[in-house]
Amino acid sequence: MSIKITGTGSIIPKIKENNSAFYNHIFYDINGNLINLDNKEIIKKFKSITGIENRRYINSNQKSSDIAIEASKIAIKDSGIDKEDIDYIILAHNIGDITSNSNQVDTLPSLASRVKAGLKIINPSCVAYDILFGCPGWIEGVIQAAAFIKAKMAKKCLVIGSDTLSRVLDKSDRDSMIYADGAGATIIENCNQKGGILSHKTATYSSNDEINYIYYGNANNKIDDKTKYIKMQGRKVYEFALNHVPMAMKECVDNSNVSIEKIKKIFIHQANQKMDEEIIKRFYKLFNKKMPNDVLPMNIKDFGNSSVATIPTLYDLTKKKNYNDHHINNGDHILFASVGAGMNINALTYQL
Amino acid sequence: MSIKITGTGSIIPKIKENNSAFYNHIFYDINGNLINLDNKEIIKKFKSITGIENRRYINSNQKSSDIAIEASKIAIKDSGIDKEDIDYIILAHNIGDITSNSNQVDTLPSLASRVKAGLKIINPSCVAYDILFGCPGWIEGVIQAAAFIKAKMAKKCLVIGSDTLSRVLDKSDRDSMIYADGAGATIIENCNQKGGILSHKTATYSSNDEINYIYYGNANNKIDDKTKYIKMQGRKVYEFALNHVPMAMKECVDNSNVSIEKIKKIFIHQANQKMDEEIIKRFYKLFNKKMPNDVLPMNIKDFGNSSVATIPTLYDLTKKKNYNDHHINNGDHILFASVGAGMNINALTYQL
Repeated sequence: MSIKITGTGSIIPKIKENNSAFYNHIFYDINGNLINLDNKEIIKKFKSITGIENRRYINSNQKSSDIAIEASKIAIKDSGIDKEDIDYIILAHNIGDITSNSNQVDTLPSLASRVKAGLKIINPSCVAYDILFGCPGWIEGVIQAAAFIKAKMAKKCLVIGSDTLSRVLDKSDRDSMIYADGAGATIIENCNQKGGILSHKTATYSSNDEINYIYYGNANNKIDDKTKYIKMQGRKVYEFALNHVPMAMKECVDNSNVSIEKIKKIFIHQANQKMDEEIIKRFYKLFNKKMPNDVLPMNIKDFGNSSVATIPTLYDLTKKKNYNDHHINNGDHILFASVGAGMNINALTYQL
Repeated sequence: MSIKITGTGSIIPKIKENNSAFYNHIFYDINGNLINLDNKEIIKKFKSITGIENRRYINSNQKSSDIAIEASKIAIKDSGIDKEDIDYIILAHNIGDITSNSNQVDTLPSLASRVKAGLKIINPSCVAYDILFGCPGWIEGVIQAAAFIKAKMAKKCLVIGSDTLSRVLDKSDRDSMIYADGAGATIIENCNQKGGILSHKTATYSSNDEINYIYYGNANNKIDDKTKYIKMQGRKVYEFALNHVPMAMKECVDNSNVSIEKIKKIFIHQANQKMDEEIIKRFYKLFNKKMPNDVLPMNIKDFGNSSVATIPTLYDLTKKKNYNDHHINNGDHILFASVGAGMNINALTYQL
């Protein structure tokens, strides 16, 4: 028996926001001090570190659960399964549904229930729930689906990552340029083929310092002390990721008994181009190797950081469209890895 | 091998709000029409249906994660385990943390990470995540913990239900009298003793009608169209529960191979006294039996409906303090059951 991804789907929202859209923003640091630099300089530096040129936002009439439904329809069709055979709908997000005219996170009922309604799945035995696990939520959802399959509680699961960070942007914060919207969906099934999930590793680091690296907090310009936005201690996140992610990835690969040379592609959370590349370099260094040139598909340049949605979206694009000339085929070994709020880290070794 | 609850803890918040506190509220129906009845009459009728006389609220300086931490400390101590041996922290809630001066749901980072921080657990392999599953969230967390144990991904899990509905009350809605705050925590372990979890059953009903039975919506008095509160279509919930919960409970008991006569107590979500009793009567009717007199511990009269927290709190009080003269002992068979937003239903047959 193996546990495989048998279908994928993703939604890349229509609104394309270029870096130039931020030229007229007034940026403050986290202490409320005006940043006395030309915005073109700020954005040039931002681009050189994060790699981001454009990011995508949903339309004003859409919500996170809407794009989750659309991505799920594509994944179900791609897998060829009957939607009524799905045992679990596991939806990873971080901020629920937020309508464009509100600052209120709406998590009642769960977004997974809204997706089940949107897919018109009738079978009451299809259990729908949400998980909150920071950006690594989609990988963790896949691990939970695998647990249900191993425990003989499920055969087919729909695992979705969907977030709309455009609804929690502090426009007075330079980090607002990082965040994007998106949804990626996958069907996880038990199969008779070889391969599938070979190993996984999860870690939660949550000292009182670490839980505040990525959090919900007030705007940098301090104008409104009631409204909260997504906030990040960028330097701390960067250092944390470099210190902890490579080793978690190595443990995962070691547990899979797959040799490092066999890993053809690494699908890492699209957090920040420089950080991602540095993580992968350090990961290979743990094996006394140099990072291969073509191991790292990236789409952050065009789509920004859409939280839980980056990995299933990137995997979907690569598998179906050879995105940026990255190819994956049946039998290939790949690695998924993520890091985010919590602080949570996870990795998963997988054979197509 | 069995999977057992080896420790329990609960927090009953300090602020005791009597029904008389609502005498001066101005109630509207869901269409914004003033309810032209004497509040004393409204509250008398409310009491006769729901059974609620008092409900508990947290202090203004507390949040949901704070009481979750306190309940968890008690459960860990009760179980006698080393907190560093916990493999998973699973926290069920519906509205995250909301501070008393805000209407914003805060779910970043996850409340489970905040609990891990508050418990000062260092071990990074202790994975902390939140689930959103309506009021049945705590039972579903226990079922997920059991899946991880069966899949050999965990040995010991901390499963918590914590919600603070006092922070999302529409004071112009009669249903505001139902809601309460609370937290219950449990340690779930694999053991060499007999019994433990014998069977479980979960169902999600989410047609477009059903997802709107319990939801986040505007106040009945229509004064503010931006702020959202917990809302309920009471009649629909009542009918739904009576139509679907008894059969799910029966399926669960049937799968356990425990005869109905052996079920000593039923710990049902404290939603509404009349509804709960009617569910249990119909459940016994499915076995052609009358509901036994002493099968149903209830604490809604004193504590109100604290969402995910009602069942672990009631179980903790009954086990440790023979609450309301209900006794449970090693070897006894009991049944847990819940219903709530989603609409979700679950049940779990358990031998102490």
